[in-house]
Amino acid sequence: MTLDDFSLYARSRVDNYLTQSLRNYEPATHLQSAMAYSLFNGGKRVRPMLTYAAAALFGEANTLTDASAAAVESIHAYSLVHDDLPAMDDDDLRRGKPTCHIQFDEATAILAGDALQTFAFELLSHVKHEHLDRQLQLIQELVYGSGRHGMVTGQMIDLSNVNKSMDIHALEKMHQHKTGALIRASIRMGAISTGATANDLIALDHYANAIGLAFQVQDDIIDITSDTTTLGKNQFSDEDANKPTYPKLLGLEGAQALAQDLNKQAITTISQFGDAAQPLVELANYIIGRNH
Amino acid sequence: MTLDDFSLYARSRVDNYLTQSLRNYEPATHLQSAMAYSLFNGGKRVRPMLTYAAAALFGEANTLTDASAAAVESIHAYSLVHDDLPAMDDDDLRRGKPTCHIQFDEATAILAGDALQTFAFELLSHVKHEHLDRQLQLIQELVYGSGRHGMVTGQMIDLSNVNKSMDIHALEKMHQHKTGALIRASIRMGAISTGATANDLIALDHYANAIGLAFQVQDDIIDITSDTTTLGKNQFSDEDANKPTYPKLLGLEGAQALAQDLNKQAITTISQFGDAAQPLVELANYIIGRNH
Repeated sequence: MTLDDFSLYARSRVDNYLTQSLRNYEPATHLQSAMAYSLFNGGKRVRPMLTYAAAALFGEANTLTDASAAAVESIHAYSLVHDDLPAMDDDDLRRGKPTCHIQFDEATAILAGDALQTFAFELLSHVKHEHLDRQLQLIQELVYGSGRHGMVTGQMIDLSNVNKSMDIHALEKMHQHKTGALIRASIRMGAISTGATANDLIALDHYANAIGLAFQVQDDIIDITSDTTTLGKNQFSDEDANKPTYPKLLGLEGAQALAQDLNKQAITTISQFGDAAQPLVELANYIIGRNH
Repeated sequence: MTLDDFSLYARSRVDNYLTQSLRNYEPATHLQSAMAYSLFNGGKRVRPMLTYAAAALFGEANTLTDASAAAVESIHAYSLVHDDLPAMDDDDLRRGKPTCHIQFDEATAILAGDALQTFAFELLSHVKHEHLDRQLQLIQELVYGSGRHGMVTGQMIDLSNVNKSMDIHALEKMHQHKTGALIRASIRMGAISTGATANDLIALDHYANAIGLAFQVQDDIIDITSDTTTLGKNQFSDEDANKPTYPKLLGLEGAQALAQDLNKQAITTISQFGDAAQPLVELANYIIGRNH
Protein backbone atom coordinates (compact mmCIF):
# COMPACT_ATOMS: atom_id res chain seq x y z
CA MET A 1 0.00 0.00 0.00
CA THR A 2 1.39 3.42 -0.97
CA LEU A 3 1.26 6.29 1.52
CA ASP A 4 -1.53 7.89 -0.53
CA ASP A 5 -3.58 4.70 -0.31
CA PHE A 6 -2.88 4.33 3.37
CA SER A 7 -3.76 7.95 4.01
CA LEU A 8 -7.06 7.54 2.16
CA TYR A 9 -7.83 4.38 4.14
CA ALA A 10 -7.07 5.96 7.54
CA ARG A 11 -8.81 9.25 6.78
CA SER A 12 -12.02 7.71 5.50
CA ARG A 13 -12.09 5.24 8.37
CA VAL A 14 -11.61 7.83 11.12
CA ASP A 15 -13.90 10.37 9.45
CA ASN A 16 -16.70 7.82 9.16
CA TYR A 17 -16.27 6.86 12.78
CA LEU A 18 -16.23 10.48 13.94
CA THR A 19 -19.28 11.37 11.84
CA GLN A 20 -21.34 8.46 13.11
CA SER A 21 -20.33 9.00 16.74
CA LEU A 22 -20.96 12.74 16.63
CA ARG A 23 -24.39 12.33 15.01
CA ASN A 24 -25.37 9.75 17.59
CA TYR A 25 -27.17 12.49 19.48
CA GLU A 26 -30.29 14.50 18.67
CA PRO A 27 -31.07 17.28 18.10
CA ALA A 28 -28.33 18.97 16.11
CA THR A 29 -27.44 21.99 18.24
CA HIS A 30 -25.36 25.13 17.89
CA LEU A 31 -22.72 23.43 20.07
CA GLN A 32 -22.75 20.34 17.88
CA SER A 33 -22.27 22.51 14.77
CA ALA A 34 -19.23 24.20 16.29
CA MET A 35 -17.79 20.82 17.27
CA ALA A 36 -18.30 19.47 13.74
CA TYR A 37 -16.86 22.64 12.19
CA SER A 38 -13.70 22.17 14.22
CA LEU A 39 -13.41 18.43 13.64
CA PHE A 40 -13.98 18.53 9.87
CA ASN A 41 -11.92 21.51 8.79
CA GLY A 42 -9.53 19.81 6.37
CA GLY A 43 -7.09 18.52 8.96
CA LYS A 44 -4.47 16.11 7.64
CA ARG A 45 -5.35 13.40 10.18
CA VAL A 46 -1.67 12.70 10.86
CA ARG A 47 -2.41 11.38 14.37
CA PRO A 48 -5.12 8.90 13.26
CA MET A 49 -2.78 7.73 10.47
CA LEU A 50 -0.15 7.01 13.12
CA THR A 51 -2.74 5.15 15.22
CA TYR A 52 -3.77 2.88 12.33
CA ALA A 53 -0.16 2.37 11.24
CA ALA A 54 0.90 1.33 14.76
CA ALA A 55 -2.15 -0.94 15.11
CA ALA A 56 -1.22 -2.72 11.87
CA LEU A 57 2.02 -3.97 13.47
CA PHE A 58 0.10 -6.34 15.75
CA GLY A 59 -3.16 -7.21 14.01
CA GLU A 60 -6.23 -6.03 12.13
CA ALA A 61 -7.60 -2.65 13.18
CA ASN A 62 -10.68 -3.11 15.41
CA THR A 63 -13.27 -0.85 17.07
CA LEU A 64 -10.78 0.07 19.79
CA THR A 65 -8.42 1.26 17.05
CA ASP A 66 -11.19 3.35 15.48
CA ALA A 67 -12.18 4.84 18.83
CA SER A 68 -8.51 5.63 19.57
CA ALA A 69 -7.93 7.31 16.21
CA ALA A 70 -11.12 9.36 16.59
CA ALA A 71 -10.29 10.27 20.20
CA VAL A 72 -6.78 11.59 19.50
CA GLU A 73 -8.14 13.64 16.60
CA SER A 74 -10.88 15.04 18.83
CA ILE A 75 -8.29 16.07 21.44
CA HIS A 76 -6.16 17.62 18.68
CA ALA A 77 -9.20 19.55 17.38
CA TYR A 78 -10.10 20.86 20.85
CA SER A 79 -6.52 22.01 21.43
CA LEU A 80 -6.50 23.98 18.16
CA VAL A 81 -9.82 25.67 19.00
CA HIS A 82 -8.53 26.81 22.39
CA ASP A 83 -5.02 27.68 21.15
CA ASP A 84 -6.52 29.98 18.50
CA LEU A 85 -8.50 32.03 21.07
CA PRO A 86 -7.68 35.73 21.47
CA ALA A 87 -6.27 35.15 24.97
CA MET A 88 -3.93 32.47 23.58
CA ASP A 89 -2.37 32.63 20.09
CA ASP A 90 -5.14 34.90 18.72
CA ASP A 91 -5.32 33.36 15.24
CA ASP A 92 -8.14 34.24 12.82
CA LEU A 93 -7.21 31.69 10.18
CA ARG A 94 -6.68 27.94 10.38
CA ARG A 95 -6.15 25.78 7.28
CA GLY A 96 -7.41 28.65 5.15
CA LYS A 97 -10.70 29.01 7.01
CA PRO A 98 -11.94 31.24 9.85
CA THR A 99 -11.03 29.79 13.24
CA CYS A 100 -13.89 28.59 15.46
CA HIS A 101 -14.22 31.80 17.51
CA ILE A 102 -14.32 33.87 14.30
CA GLN A 103 -16.87 31.60 12.60
CA PHE A 104 -19.01 31.38 15.76
CA ASP A 105 -18.00 33.46 18.81
CA GLU A 106 -15.54 33.19 21.70
CA ALA A 107 -17.95 31.63 24.20
CA THR A 108 -19.03 29.00 21.68
CA ALA A 109 -15.39 28.23 20.85
CA ILE A 110 -14.50 27.74 24.52
CA LEU A 111 -17.49 25.42 25.00
CA ALA A 112 -16.95 23.53 21.73
CA GLY A 113 -13.34 22.88 22.79
CA ASP A 114 -14.50 21.71 26.21
CA ALA A 115 -17.09 19.40 24.65
CA LEU A 116 -14.59 18.01 22.12
CA GLN A 117 -12.34 16.99 25.00
CA THR A 118 -15.21 15.17 26.73
CA PHE A 119 -16.15 13.65 23.35
CA ALA A 120 -12.72 12.02 23.14
CA PHE A 121 -13.37 10.23 26.43
CA GLU A 122 -16.90 9.42 25.28
CA LEU A 123 -15.48 7.66 22.23
CA LEU A 124 -13.09 5.57 24.31
CA SER A 125 -15.46 4.73 27.15
CA HIS A 126 -18.59 3.97 25.11
CA VAL A 127 -17.09 1.66 22.48
CA LYS A 128 -18.22 -1.94 22.98
CA HIS A 129 -15.28 -4.30 23.28
CA GLU A 130 -14.39 -7.44 25.19
CA HIS A 131 -10.96 -6.23 26.37
CA LEU A 132 -11.92 -3.97 29.29
CA ASP A 133 -8.28 -3.84 30.44
CA ARG A 134 -7.12 -2.50 27.07
CA GLN A 135 -9.97 -0.02 27.00
CA LEU A 136 -8.98 1.41 30.39
CA GLN A 137 -5.35 1.51 29.32
CA LEU A 138 -6.32 3.54 26.24
CA ILE A 139 -8.09 6.09 28.45
CA GLN A 140 -5.01 6.30 30.67
CA GLU A 141 -2.79 6.86 27.63
CA LEU A 142 -5.01 9.66 26.32
CA VAL A 143 -5.04 11.33 29.76
CA TYR A 144 -1.27 11.11 29.91
CA GLY A 145 -0.78 12.58 26.44
CA SER A 146 -3.30 15.37 26.62
CA GLY A 147 -3.53 16.84 30.13
CA ARG A 148 -1.14 18.20 32.73
CA HIS A 149 1.38 15.43 31.98
CA GLY A 150 1.44 16.29 28.30
CA MET A 151 -0.14 18.69 25.83
CA VAL A 152 -1.64 21.30 28.16
CA THR A 153 1.64 21.69 30.04
CA GLY A 154 3.38 22.13 26.68
CA GLN A 155 1.00 24.92 25.68
CA MET A 156 1.57 26.56 29.08
CA ILE A 157 5.37 26.43 28.61
CA ASP A 158 4.93 27.86 25.11
CA LEU A 159 2.82 30.82 26.28
CA SER A 160 5.21 31.50 29.15
CA ASN A 161 8.13 31.86 26.76
CA VAL A 162 6.86 34.30 24.14
CA ASN A 163 9.43 37.09 23.86
CA LYS A 164 11.90 35.16 26.01
CA SER A 165 15.06 33.43 24.91
CA MET A 166 14.96 29.66 25.15
CA ASP A 167 17.87 27.25 24.66
CA ILE A 168 17.54 24.10 22.59
CA HIS A 169 16.90 21.87 25.62
CA ALA A 170 14.06 24.05 26.88
CA LEU A 171 12.62 24.19 23.34
CA GLU A 172 12.77 20.39 23.12
CA LYS A 173 11.04 20.00 26.49
CA MET A 174 8.27 22.31 25.33
CA HIS A 175 7.70 20.37 22.11
CA GLN A 176 7.87 16.98 23.85
CA HIS A 177 4.86 18.11 25.85
CA LYS A 178 3.02 20.34 23.40
CA THR A 179 2.95 18.07 20.35
CA GLY A 180 5.14 15.07 21.23
CA ALA A 181 2.96 13.69 24.03
CA LEU A 182 -0.19 13.40 21.89
CA ILE A 183 1.75 11.94 18.96
CA ARG A 184 3.23 9.35 21.32
CA ALA A 185 -0.25 8.60 22.68
CA SER A 186 -1.63 8.22 19.12
CA ILE A 187 1.00 5.60 18.35
CA ARG A 188 0.82 3.78 21.70
CA MET A 189 -2.98 3.65 21.58
CA GLY A 190 -2.99 2.13 18.10
CA ALA A 191 -0.49 -0.49 19.23
CA ILE A 192 -2.40 -1.26 22.46
CA SER A 193 -5.67 -1.63 20.55
CA THR A 194 -4.30 -4.68 18.72
CA GLY A 195 -2.35 -6.18 21.60
CA ALA A 196 1.19 -4.73 21.73
CA THR A 197 3.41 -5.90 24.60
CA ALA A 198 5.27 -3.57 26.98
CA ASN A 199 8.48 -4.23 25.00
CA ASP A 200 6.79 -3.30 21.74
CA LEU A 201 5.69 -0.02 23.32
CA ILE A 202 9.27 0.83 24.33
CA ALA A 203 10.45 0.56 20.73
CA LEU A 204 7.47 2.59 19.56
CA ASP A 205 8.20 5.30 22.13
CA HIS A 206 11.63 5.82 20.54
CA TYR A 207 10.01 6.11 17.12
CA ALA A 208 7.34 8.46 18.49
CA ASN A 209 9.84 10.74 20.22
CA ALA A 210 11.94 11.04 17.06
CA ILE A 211 9.09 11.79 14.66
CA GLY A 212 7.33 14.01 17.20
CA LEU A 213 10.37 16.23 17.37
CA ALA A 214 10.98 15.97 13.60
CA PHE A 215 7.39 17.07 13.03
CA GLN A 216 7.98 20.22 15.05
CA VAL A 217 11.35 21.01 13.49
CA GLN A 218 9.75 20.65 10.06
CA ASP A 219 6.86 22.91 11.14
CA ASP A 220 9.39 25.60 12.06
CA ILE A 221 11.18 25.15 8.72
CA ILE A 222 7.89 25.34 6.78
CA ASP A 223 6.95 28.51 8.64
CA ILE A 224 9.85 30.38 7.02
CA THR A 225 10.02 28.61 3.62
CA SER A 226 6.34 28.40 2.55
CA ASP A 227 3.98 31.21 1.62
CA THR A 228 0.60 31.94 3.21
CA THR A 229 -1.44 30.27 0.45
CA THR A 230 0.33 26.92 0.83
CA LEU A 231 0.27 27.16 4.62
CA GLY A 232 -3.36 28.14 5.22
CA LYS A 233 -2.20 30.44 8.00
CA ASN A 234 -0.14 33.60 7.99
CA GLN A 235 3.52 33.03 7.06
CA PHE A 236 6.03 34.05 9.72
CA SER A 237 3.28 33.76 12.35
CA ASP A 238 5.84 32.23 14.75
CA GLU A 239 8.48 34.85 13.85
CA ASP A 240 5.99 37.61 14.56
CA ALA A 241 5.32 36.40 18.05
CA ASN A 242 9.06 36.22 18.78
CA LYS A 243 8.72 32.56 19.53
CA PRO A 244 11.86 30.48 19.70
CA THR A 245 12.20 28.12 16.71
CA TYR A 246 14.77 25.56 15.52
CA PRO A 247 15.87 27.61 12.49
CA LYS A 248 16.52 30.54 14.83
CA LEU A 249 18.63 28.39 17.16
CA LEU A 250 20.39 26.18 14.58
CA GLY A 251 20.07 28.10 11.31
CA LEU A 252 17.91 26.80 8.46
CA GLU A 253 20.48 24.22 7.31
CA GLY A 254 21.11 23.05 10.85
CA ALA A 255 17.39 22.56 11.41
CA GLN A 256 17.07 20.63 8.13
CA ALA A 257 19.97 18.36 9.11
CA LEU A 258 18.35 17.71 12.51
CA ALA A 259 15.06 16.76 10.84
CA GLN A 260 16.87 14.29 8.57
CA ASP A 261 18.76 12.80 11.48
CA LEU A 262 15.60 12.31 13.53
CA ASN A 263 13.97 10.67 10.53
CA LYS A 264 16.80 8.13 10.29
CA GLN A 265 16.60 7.38 14.02
CA ALA A 266 12.86 6.79 13.77
CA ILE A 267 13.17 4.37 10.86
CA THR A 268 16.04 2.42 12.41
CA THR A 269 14.07 1.94 15.63
CA ILE A 270 11.12 0.25 13.97
CA SER A 271 13.11 -1.96 11.58
CA GLN A 272 12.55 -4.80 14.11
CA PHE A 273 8.90 -4.98 13.04
CA GLY A 274 9.81 -5.86 9.44
CA ASP A 275 7.47 -5.27 6.50
CA ALA A 276 4.49 -4.49 8.76
CA ALA A 277 6.26 -1.24 9.69
CA GLN A 278 6.14 0.09 6.11
CA PRO A 279 3.30 2.58 6.82
CA LEU A 280 5.22 3.95 9.83
CA VAL A 281 8.36 4.31 7.68
CA GLU A 282 6.44 6.18 5.00
CA LEU A 283 4.78 8.41 7.58
CA ALA A 284 8.19 9.34 8.98
CA ASN A 285 9.36 10.20 5.46
CA TYR A 286 6.20 12.19 4.82
CA ILE A 287 6.71 14.28 7.96
CA ILE A 288 10.10 15.43 6.71
CA GLY A 289 9.01 15.82 3.07
CA ARG A 290 5.83 17.87 3.59
CA ASN A 291 5.75 21.58 2.81
CA HIS A 292 2.52 22.52 4.62
CA MET B 1 -24.38 11.14 61.93
CA THR B 2 -25.49 14.79 61.74
CA LEU B 3 -25.21 16.66 58.46
CA ASP B 4 -22.30 18.66 59.90
CA ASP B 5 -20.45 15.45 60.76
CA PHE B 6 -21.24 13.94 57.37
CA SER B 7 -20.14 17.10 55.60
CA LEU B 8 -16.85 17.09 57.52
CA TYR B 9 -16.29 13.42 56.68
CA ALA B 10 -17.00 13.87 52.96
CA ARG B 11 -15.04 17.11 52.62
CA SER B 12 -11.93 15.86 54.36
CA ARG B 13 -12.04 12.59 52.45
CA VAL B 14 -12.40 14.17 48.99
CA ASP B 15 -9.93 16.96 49.77
CA ASN B 16 -7.29 14.47 50.91
CA TYR B 17 -7.83 12.42 47.78
CA LEU B 18 -7.65 15.47 45.52
CA THR B 19 -4.53 16.79 47.25
CA GLN B 20 -2.67 13.50 47.01
CA SER B 21 -3.68 12.90 43.40
CA LEU B 22 -2.82 16.42 42.29
CA ARG B 23 0.60 16.33 43.99
CA ASN B 24 1.41 13.02 42.41
CA TYR B 25 3.35 14.87 39.76
CA GLU B 26 6.60 16.78 39.89
CA PRO B 27 7.56 19.56 39.54
CA ALA B 28 4.96 22.00 40.81
CA THR B 29 4.25 24.22 37.83
CA HIS B 30 2.37 27.42 37.12
CA LEU B 31 -0.39 25.29 35.58
CA GLN B 32 -0.53 23.08 38.66
CA SER B 33 -0.85 26.17 40.89
CA ALA B 34 -3.79 27.47 38.87
CA MET B 35 -5.45 24.04 39.02
CA ALA B 36 -4.99 23.87 42.81
CA TYR B 37 -6.21 27.47 43.24
CA SER B 38 -9.42 26.58 41.43
CA LEU B 39 -9.93 23.25 43.20
CA PHE B 40 -9.32 24.53 46.73
CA ASN B 41 -11.18 27.83 46.77
CA GLY B 42 -13.64 27.16 49.58
CA GLY B 43 -16.19 25.25 47.53
CA LYS B 44 -18.94 23.58 49.54
CA ARG B 45 -18.27 20.13 48.02
CA VAL B 46 -21.98 19.50 47.56
CA ARG B 47 -21.39 17.08 44.68
CA PRO B 48 -18.82 14.92 46.56
CA MET B 49 -21.19 14.86 49.54
CA LEU B 50 -23.90 13.49 47.25
CA THR B 51 -21.45 10.90 45.90
CA TYR B 52 -20.53 9.63 49.36
CA ALA B 53 -24.17 9.72 50.54
CA ALA B 54 -25.31 7.67 47.53
CA ALA B 55 -22.43 5.22 47.97
CA ALA B 56 -23.43 4.65 51.61
CA LEU B 57 -26.75 3.15 50.47
CA PHE B 58 -25.03 0.06 49.09
CA GLY B 59 -21.81 -0.42 51.06
CA GLU B 60 -18.63 1.12 52.48
CA ALA B 61 -17.08 3.89 50.41
CA ASN B 62 -14.06 2.53 48.49
CA THR B 63 -11.36 3.96 46.20
CA LEU B 64 -13.82 4.10 43.29
CA THR B 65 -16.06 6.27 45.48
CA ASP B 66 -13.14 8.57 46.32
CA ALA B 67 -12.11 8.82 42.67
CA SER B 68 -15.71 9.57 41.68
CA ALA B 69 -16.15 12.29 44.31
CA ALA B 70 -12.85 13.88 43.32
CA ALA B 71 -13.64 13.62 39.60
CA VAL B 72 -17.05 15.32 39.80
CA GLU B 73 -15.53 18.11 41.89
CA SER B 74 -12.74 18.53 39.34
CA ILE B 75 -15.29 18.82 36.53
CA HIS B 76 -17.27 21.32 38.61
CA ALA B 77 -14.10 23.37 39.24
CA TYR B 78 -13.17 23.42 35.54
CA SER B 79 -16.67 24.54 34.58
CA LEU B 80 -16.53 27.47 37.04
CA VAL B 81 -13.12 28.58 35.73
CA HIS B 82 -14.36 28.63 32.13
CA ASP B 83 -17.80 30.09 32.99
CA ASP B 84 -16.12 33.02 34.78
CA LEU B 85 -14.04 33.99 31.70
CA PRO B 86 -14.62 37.42 30.11
CA ALA B 87 -16.12 35.81 26.97
CA MET B 88 -18.59 33.89 29.12
CA ASP B 89 -20.12 35.28 32.37
CA ASP B 90 -17.20 37.69 32.95
CA ASP B 91 -17.07 37.35 36.75
CA ASP B 92 -14.17 38.76 38.80
CA LEU B 93 -15.23 37.28 42.11
CA ARG B 94 -16.00 33.70 43.12
CA ARG B 95 -16.64 32.72 46.74
CA GLY B 96 -15.17 36.05 47.84
CA LYS B 97 -11.87 35.56 46.00
CA PRO B 98 -10.55 36.67 42.60
CA THR B 99 -11.58 34.26 39.85
CA CYS B 100 -8.84 32.22 38.17
CA HIS B 101 -8.34 34.55 35.19
CA ILE B 102 -8.06 37.55 37.57
CA GLN B 103 -5.63 35.81 39.94
CA PHE B 104 -3.54 34.41 37.03
CA ASP B 105 -4.47 35.46 33.48
CA GLU B 106 -6.96 34.42 30.82
CA ALA B 107 -4.69 31.99 28.97
CA THR B 108 -3.74 30.26 32.22
CA ALA B 109 -7.41 30.03 33.22
CA ILE B 110 -8.37 28.43 29.90
CA LEU B 111 -5.55 25.90 30.22
CA ALA B 112 -6.18 25.20 33.92
CA GLY B 113 -9.83 24.48 33.10
CA ASP B 114 -8.77 22.19 30.25
CA ALA B 115 -6.33 20.35 32.51
CA LEU B 116 -8.89 20.02 35.32
CA GLN B 117 -11.23 18.28 32.91
CA THR B 118 -8.50 15.81 31.90
CA PHE B 119 -7.61 15.42 35.59
CA ALA B 120 -11.15 14.16 36.28
CA PHE B 121 -10.65 11.37 33.75
CA GLU B 122 -7.16 10.75 35.14
CA LEU B 123 -8.66 10.17 38.59
CA LEU B 124 -11.20 7.67 37.27
CA SER B 125 -8.92 5.81 34.88
CA HIS B 126 -5.82 5.55 37.09
CA VAL B 127 -7.44 4.32 40.32
CA LYS B 128 -6.54 0.69 41.02
CA HIS B 129 -9.62 -1.45 41.47
CA GLU B 130 -10.73 -4.99 40.68
CA HIS B 131 -14.09 -3.99 39.13
CA LEU B 132 -13.03 -2.88 35.63
CA ASP B 133 -16.65 -2.90 34.47
CA ARG B 134 -17.70 -0.45 37.20
CA GLN B 135 -14.68 1.73 36.50
CA LEU B 136 -15.62 2.04 32.82
CA GLN B 137 -19.24 2.72 33.76
CA LEU B 138 -18.11 5.57 36.02
CA ILE B 139 -16.19 7.14 33.14
CA GLN B 140 -19.28 6.82 30.93
CA GLU B 141 -21.43 8.48 33.60
CA LEU B 142 -19.02 11.39 33.94
CA VAL B 143 -18.93 11.85 30.16
CA TYR B 144 -22.70 11.83 30.05
CA GLY B 145 -23.05 14.38 32.84
CA SER B 146 -20.34 16.81 31.80
CA GLY B 147 -20.07 17.04 28.01
CA ARG B 148 -22.39 17.62 25.06
CA HIS B 149 -25.08 15.42 26.64
CA GLY B 150 -25.05 17.45 29.86
CA MET B 151 -23.30 20.40 31.43
CA VAL B 152 -21.66 22.00 28.39
CA THR B 153 -24.92 21.99 26.46
CA GLY B 154 -26.61 23.60 29.48
CA GLN B 155 -24.06 26.40 29.54
CA MET B 156 -24.54 26.88 25.79
CA ILE B 157 -28.33 27.15 26.24
CA ASP B 158 -27.75 29.61 29.10
CA LEU B 159 -25.48 31.87 27.04
CA SER B 160 -27.85 31.75 24.07
CA ASN B 161 -30.72 33.07 26.19
CA VAL B 162 -29.26 36.14 27.90
CA ASN B 163 -31.64 39.03 27.23
CA LYS B 164 -34.23 36.66 25.80
CA SER B 165 -37.50 35.60 27.36
CA MET B 166 -37.65 31.94 28.35
CA ASP B 167 -40.69 30.03 29.58
CA ILE B 168 -40.53 27.69 32.57
CA HIS B 169 -40.06 24.57 30.43
CA ALA B 170 -37.12 26.04 28.56
CA LEU B 171 -35.63 27.21 31.87
CA GLU B 172 -36.03 23.71 33.32
CA LYS B 173 -34.37 22.15 30.28
CA MET B 174 -31.44 24.52 30.64
CA HIS B 175 -30.95 23.69 34.32
CA GLN B 176 -31.36 19.95 33.78
CA HIS B 177 -28.32 20.16 31.54
CA LYS B 178 -26.31 22.95 33.16
CA THR B 179 -26.36 21.78 36.79
CA GLY B 180 -28.74 18.81 36.91
CA ALA B 181 -26.68 16.47 34.73
CA LEU B 182 -23.54 16.68 36.87
CA ILE B 183 -25.54 16.38 40.11
CA ARG B 184 -27.19 13.26 38.70
CA ALA B 185 -23.79 11.90 37.69
CA SER B 186 -22.40 12.60 41.20
CA ILE B 187 -25.19 10.53 42.76
CA ARG B 188 -25.16 7.72 40.19
CA MET B 189 -21.37 7.40 40.36
CA GLY B 190 -21.42 7.09 44.15
CA ALA B 191 -24.08 4.41 43.90
CA ILE B 192 -22.28 2.52 41.12
CA SER B 193 -19.01 2.57 43.08
CA THR B 194 -20.56 0.37 45.79
CA GLY B 195 -22.62 -1.86 43.53
CA ALA B 196 -26.06 -0.30 42.91
CA THR B 197 -28.38 -2.19 40.54
CA ALA B 198 -30.12 -0.66 37.51
CA ASN B 199 -33.34 -0.41 39.57
CA ASP B 200 -31.55 1.42 42.38
CA LEU B 201 -30.27 3.92 39.82
CA ILE B 202 -33.80 4.62 38.55
CA ALA B 203 -34.95 5.62 42.04
CA LEU B 204 -31.84 7.72 42.52
CA ASP B 205 -32.43 9.48 39.19
CA HIS B 206 -35.80 10.72 40.49
CA TYR B 207 -34.12 12.00 43.65
CA ALA B 208 -31.34 13.60 41.61
CA ASN B 209 -33.70 15.36 39.21
CA ALA B 210 -35.74 16.80 42.08
CA ILE B 211 -32.81 18.10 44.13
CA GLY B 212 -30.95 19.25 41.03
CA LEU B 213 -33.83 21.50 40.12
CA ALA B 214 -34.41 22.51 43.76
CA PHE B 215 -30.74 23.50 43.98
CA GLN B 216 -31.16 25.86 41.03
CA VAL B 217 -34.45 27.34 42.22
CA GLN B 218 -32.83 27.99 45.61
CA ASP B 219 -29.81 29.59 43.87
CA ASP B 220 -32.16 32.00 42.10
CA ILE B 221 -33.93 32.77 45.39
CA ILE B 222 -30.62 33.37 47.19
CA ASP B 223 -29.51 35.69 44.42
CA ILE B 224 -32.27 38.18 45.33
CA THR B 225 -32.50 37.60 49.11
CA SER B 226 -28.83 37.52 50.23
CA ASP B 227 -26.31 40.33 50.22
CA THR B 228 -22.90 40.30 48.52
CA THR B 229 -20.94 39.47 51.69
CA THR B 230 -22.95 36.31 52.40
CA LEU B 231 -22.91 35.32 48.76
CA GLY B 232 -19.23 35.82 47.91
CA LYS B 233 -20.29 37.15 44.53
CA ASN B 234 -22.14 40.26 43.48
CA GLN B 235 -25.81 40.28 44.48
CA PHE B 236 -28.26 40.53 41.59
CA SER B 237 -25.55 39.22 39.26
CA ASP B 238 -28.22 37.16 37.46
CA GLU B 239 -30.66 40.09 37.42
CA ASP B 240 -27.97 42.28 35.93
CA ALA B 241 -27.47 39.99 32.99
CA ASN B 242 -31.22 39.84 32.32
CA LYS B 243 -31.12 36.10 32.78
CA PRO B 244 -34.41 34.28 33.26
CA THR B 245 -34.86 33.04 36.86
CA TYR B 246 -37.59 31.19 38.78
CA PRO B 247 -38.51 34.19 40.98
CA LYS B 248 -39.00 36.22 37.80
CA LEU B 249 -41.26 33.58 36.28
CA LEU B 250 -43.12 32.45 39.42
CA GLY B 251 -42.65 35.31 41.89
CA LEU B 252 -40.53 34.86 45.04
CA GLU B 253 -43.26 32.96 46.93
CA GLY B 254 -44.02 30.75 43.95
CA ALA B 255 -40.33 29.87 43.64
CA GLN B 256 -40.11 29.10 47.36
CA ALA B 257 -43.16 26.82 47.13
CA LEU B 258 -41.63 24.99 44.16
CA ALA B 259 -38.39 24.42 46.07
CA GLN B 260 -40.33 22.95 49.02
CA ASP B 261 -42.35 20.71 46.73
CA LEU B 262 -39.25 19.37 44.96
CA ASN B 263 -37.69 18.70 48.36
CA LYS B 264 -40.68 16.55 49.40
CA GLN B 265 -40.58 14.63 46.10
CA ALA B 266 -36.88 13.91 46.57
CA ILE B 267 -37.31 12.59 50.11
CA THR B 268 -40.32 10.44 49.24
CA THR B 269 -38.43 8.82 46.37
CA ILE B 270 -35.57 7.56 48.53
CA SER B 271 -37.66 6.38 51.48
CA GLN B 272 -37.32 2.85 50.02
CA PHE B 273 -33.67 2.78 51.12
CA GLY B 274 -34.62 3.18 54.81
CA ASP B 275 -32.18 4.54 57.41
CA ALA B 276 -29.21 4.35 55.06
CA ALA B 277 -30.77 7.23 53.11
CA GLN B 278 -30.54 9.64 56.05
CA PRO B 279 -27.54 11.58 54.61
CA LEU B 280 -29.40 12.01 51.30
CA VAL B 281 -32.48 13.27 53.18
CA GLU B 282 -30.42 15.77 55.13
CA LEU B 283 -28.65 16.92 51.98
CA ALA B 284 -32.01 17.57 50.32
CA ASN B 285 -33.08 19.61 53.36
CA TYR B 286 -29.77 21.48 53.33
CA ILE B 287 -30.18 22.45 49.68
CA ILE B 288 -33.48 24.17 50.48
CA GLY B 289 -32.33 25.63 53.79
CA ARG B 290 -29.03 27.20 52.67
CA ASN B 291 -28.73 30.94 52.20
CA HIS B 292 -25.47 31.02 50.21
